[in-house]
Amino acid sequence: MTLNYDVIVIGGGHAGCEAASAAARMGASTCLVTMDMNKIAQMSCNPAVGGIAKGQIVREVDALGGQMGIITDATAIQFRMLNRSKGPAVWSPRAQCDRGRFIWRWRQALDSTPGLDIWQDQATELIVEGRRARGVRTIWGAELLAGSVVITAGTFLNGLMHIGRRQVEGGRIAEPAAHHLTESITRHGIRAGRMKTGTPVRIDRRSVHFEDMEVQEGEADFHRFSFMDTGRRLPQLPCWTCYTNPDVHEALRAALPDSPLYNGQIRSIGPRYCPSIETKLVTFPDKGQHPLFLEPEGTDTNEMYLNGFSSSLPMDAQIEALRHIPALRDVKVYRPGYAIEYDFFDPTQLKHTLESKVVAGLFLAGQVNGTTGYEEAAGQGLVAGVNAALACSGGEPFVMRRDESYIGVLIDDLVTKGVDEPYRMFTSRAEYRILLRQDDADARLTERAYAMGLATRQRYDRWMAKKAGIEGIEKLCKETSVKPLEINPALENLGTTPLREGCKLIDLLGRPQLSMDTLAAIVPQLREKIESLPDRREETAEAAEIRIKYKGYIERERMVAEKMHRLEDIKIKGRFNYAEMQQLSTEARQKLQSIDPVTLAQASRIPGVSPSDINVMLVLMGR
Amino acid sequence: MTLNYDVIVIGGGHAGCEAASAAARMGASTCLVTMDMNKIAQMSCNPAVGGIAKGQIVREVDALGGQMGIITDATAIQFRMLNRSKGPAVWSPRAQCDRGRFIWRWRQALDSTPGLDIWQDQATELIVEGRRARGVRTIWGAELLAGSVVITAGTFLNGLMHIGRRQVEGGRIAEPAAHHLTESITRHGIRAGRMKTGTPVRIDRRSVHFEDMEVQEGEADFHRFSFMDTGRRLPQLPCWTCYTNPDVHEALRAALPDSPLYNGQIRSIGPRYCPSIETKLVTFPDKGQHPLFLEPEGTDTNEMYLNGFSSSLPMDAQIEALRHIPALRDVKVYRPGYAIEYDFFDPTQLKHTLESKVVAGLFLAGQVNGTTGYEEAAGQGLVAGVNAALACSGGEPFVMRRDESYIGVLIDDLVTKGVDEPYRMFTSRAEYRILLRQDDADARLTERAYAMGLATRQRYDRWMAKKAGIEGIEKLCKETSVKPLEINPALENLGTTPLREGCKLIDLLGRPQLSMDTLAAIVPQLREKIESLPDRREETAEAAEIRIKYKGYIERERMVAEKMHRLEDIKIKGRFNYAEMQQLSTEARQKLQSIDPVTLAQASRIPGVSPSDINVMLVLMGR
Repeated sequence: MTLNYDVIVIGGGHAGCEAASAAARMGASTCLVTMDMNKIAQMSCNPAVGGIAKGQIVREVDALGGQMGIITDATAIQFRMLNRSKGPAVWSPRAQCDRGRFIWRWRQALDSTPGLDIWQDQATELIVEGRRARGVRTIWGAELLAGSVVITAGTFLNGLMHIGRRQVEGGRIAEPAAHHLTESITRHGIRAGRMKTGTPVRIDRRSVHFEDMEVQEGEADFHRFSFMDTGRRLPQLPCWTCYTNPDVHEALRAALPDSPLYNGQIRSIGPRYCPSIETKLVTFPDKGQHPLFLEPEGTDTNEMYLNGFSSSLPMDAQIEALRHIPALRDVKVYRPGYAIEYDFFDPTQLKHTLESKVVAGLFLAGQVNGTTGYEEAAGQGLVAGVNAALACSGGEPFVMRRDESYIGVLIDDLVTKGVDEPYRMFTSRAEYRILLRQDDADARLTERAYAMGLATRQRYDRWMAKKAGIEGIEKLCKETSVKPLEINPALENLGTTPLREGCKLIDLLGRPQLSMDTLAAIVPQLREKIESLPDRREETAEAAEIRIKYKGYIERERMVAEKMHRLEDIKIKGRFNYAEMQQLSTEARQKLQSIDPVTLAQASRIPGVSPSDINVMLVLMGR
Repeated sequence: MTLNYDVIVIGGGHAGCEAASAAARMGASTCLVTMDMNKIAQMSCNPAVGGIAKGQIVREVDALGGQMGIITDATAIQFRMLNRSKGPAVWSPRAQCDRGRFIWRWRQALDSTPGLDIWQDQATELIVEGRRARGVRTIWGAELLAGSVVITAGTFLNGLMHIGRRQVEGGRIAEPAAHHLTESITRHGIRAGRMKTGTPVRIDRRSVHFEDMEVQEGEADFHRFSFMDTGRRLPQLPCWTCYTNPDVHEALRAALPDSPLYNGQIRSIGPRYCPSIETKLVTFPDKGQHPLFLEPEGTDTNEMYLNGFSSSLPMDAQIEALRHIPALRDVKVYRPGYAIEYDFFDPTQLKHTLESKVVAGLFLAGQVNGTTGYEEAAGQGLVAGVNAALACSGGEPFVMRRDESYIGVLIDDLVTKGVDEPYRMFTSRAEYRILLRQDDADARLTERAYAMGLATRQRYDRWMAKKAGIEGIEKLCKETSVKPLEINPALENLGTTPLREGCKLIDLLGRPQLSMDTLAAIVPQLREKIESLPDRREETAEAAEIRIKYKGYIERERMVAEKMHRLEDIKIKGRFNYAEMQQLSTEARQKLQSIDPVTLAQASRIPGVSPSDINVMLVLMGR
């Protein structure tokens, strides 16, 4: 049986769902192929979305018209803005979600997308004709043909799970692995490797002594993931914190000889910033305790997630160790933690569109590119889906710059530097952090997404209204002066120096002691302006405040970024035969040949390519 | 790692959920072992509960304190009472359910049951010591020890799925098969065989031309599955009917050479009363059409179920055939139908408690006993779970008689007659149909269930209140006479003969033209009596009506049943050495030796044992 589509997406995880959803929104006839329609967008690891730098990615996905932010808001059972004590450049939203509802909301989102079909089956072979992807064949014998194929197979490719010395094939606990697909891809010259990840025990809420834990409540303010109106929140639940101790560590250490991570059973590399508890012990032998976070999995379930206790030690060691924690002395688990090894493909063989350089029409996104995290997957999925659709319609490729989005940073890092361990986003990976804030993802991306047909008119109008509101507040702050007499008592109350002469609001706002809120409370014109906004007053006022307070930083970083644009504008692809350029270092020669950068800016970011190598290239180009 | 329980249940389907829930309610420390906690009570085939005779079983499960009725009511998106044109002996409730919600409600029900743990893992070995089950070992190396082990593995044991000539191992689509467990059971002398079942395509609602189908709405009256108050219903949805035609049949017939059912690929036998569409064509070659029922899968999904179109033909044949149906001319499917072969165990090796005669402490329930249907599974699961718990606590075994419940008929048929094809319940299998009505399952079972600790006090009180209501109405009807003058005009209006003299209400109710409703409308005392009931007026009045109207039939059948009790009371287990009883027919000798019946009544029901064989045994016993 043969079915024909513009775009087929293999895999229904966070990358695949955004990819399929984006491709269909771009007008491509799209088919999402998933092994199990009931596990669409399953959160295989912790039931949470966002976090540092990851939250920004979700805001960007949302600003571009993606679904993850909307679904996260609709299913959030705890919301917090992380890093609030630091500058707004690194504020990061994070939510616990109801795992079951998250899946169903995604099913509904896909179900209600015109032009998007779902086919429940397992892809076993990539069809390639003349170095062009043409479709896939499935385990049940279907042939799905398409102009573009997006592979988002997560951890399923030749997945092998480990608990102690036991090994079981599977793509995720209780789900079969996907065999043959990797081999049908590498046959065409695409390089594959192995990575490892892991997940902790799941705990029965009824067995926990909560009185021996610290509670962590969420925040009830206006912050959300989506720039759209996502309605009322679910009932909010607390998370809980406890700590390991030397007895816990001793129990774990005793089992290290049976650890697949340390007895040679697992050779592939896991996520550095999400290590197993046994890796923490080995890496930090002097630490007497590690924090653990007990997170609810939903409003209607006893299942809880023990964040920080990822492990592939034998299950009796995992459980025995937990029982040394006072709050978990009677713990009952639903299943132990496990590790999983899976195939990924070298992302330096990808273009910035996430299309393979080796097989045209083949796009890869998510864990198959060596990343970790739902958010990183979703961001890549969206970009791959959009470009898969554009490749069919003949549109200009959609590439995001590093000064425009974390998604741009992520993809540029992947295709330029490659990965030797699961890649996770951090704010430190972005050189233009102050430009890539969670509050302004709509400002950065929504107009462009609307112009492409990716974001809806409704989203565009919503952004334009917010933009007008921000500009109105900025204008008022620029134009309005206050007199010392009017305001000095209030300023003194707030612990800031009184004025000697009239002062613009914009200058007052620069003071660290003053916020838009406090200023609005003492300046009636400002208060009235904010109150006159038709909706989202807090969100708009906060956006204006950040733009005013950090104007200097923002402008400086924008200038640096624009300088870099000049290098970005120097296209070098195809201009050099690197192998013969004796002026380059050997390493640079090899790396440049392998990555084949599009621009001089990208060349400059390749590890092993030095500023002097870049100078050589500039000289050769006659500049 | 070793965990200890009273009862462990292997498998989280309809049998396993009721088993685990019942065992825990009986006070046993219980562990449900399931491969996937997110698929608890998954409806693998159609998203519907009940139907002819099956609905009665669900009512019995409910009357005994089981969960299936409550969860069905809570998730029903269409309810109907089948067979309303026939006598109340065969009225059968049936509901379409929201597939996703059904799973979550079961998870919640299990989660909120004290003493019930869930362990997500896969049992691979039955531990037997000295012909006694002691527990299981799992694929991940856990050892779960228990006094009783209940196996409810459904279609997972060595499951092999078929679509055309393709075969894939699995327990259900997208789920791995369970290997090794069968072999660890048969090793001890338990006989296994293979059976086959199948399921139809799943259809995208958006591709259906509903204007070319017949609509079938549900019923909005008071009928429900549970005798408890299960609250307000979900929004109700219609089902749809269409028909195959000669073009459909031709497309299917052309593919028969690739049918695994007809080319020798599948040798095991499928459910006779739920045949594949290709089997219908082969069995009824002259029929020009077969009805198909398009059923919604839930309130929030486009997925629909095409009841009547089960198939394992190649997928292109399935889809091409469907496109010859006008309403499905543009049909899009999510996945094709498939067949699955799986292991079952000979149920004649079971006692009426569903405990194995070969391995003590091993209980089997559901499809592993050769049955088909969620309801048959649930009924067995409940009995197995109760007896598994009783075996640990030393209580009297819980056995249900044939004149007491369909569950009793089901289990007696299984252990006495065995199965050579998947067994499904019908009203015709019960010789005491008028005693086994859907309306009186509470009357038959709730007091006994309460006495055992299986049903709650709340359920018992509810039944006692209803019982008092029924008896009050009966008493009034027995004692109240109406005079011709008072009632004749109304009787004539209703098309029934006027009275010549005073008449008891109870006698009037015997008239086919008069119902409790119509009589209450014209007899104020009766109306007031019914209106004075504290709640469930319609349910109580209907129960009283059926008891009054069918009194004669009920009493006659009760007498026959009581005669049979005498044979049931004649225990023969261990009294005969059948092999040496030359007076018996050879067949009877072999069958009696194999089944080893407990009572003379059971002996009389064994196929191949004739009335004269029974006489021989009676004579030998000196009667």
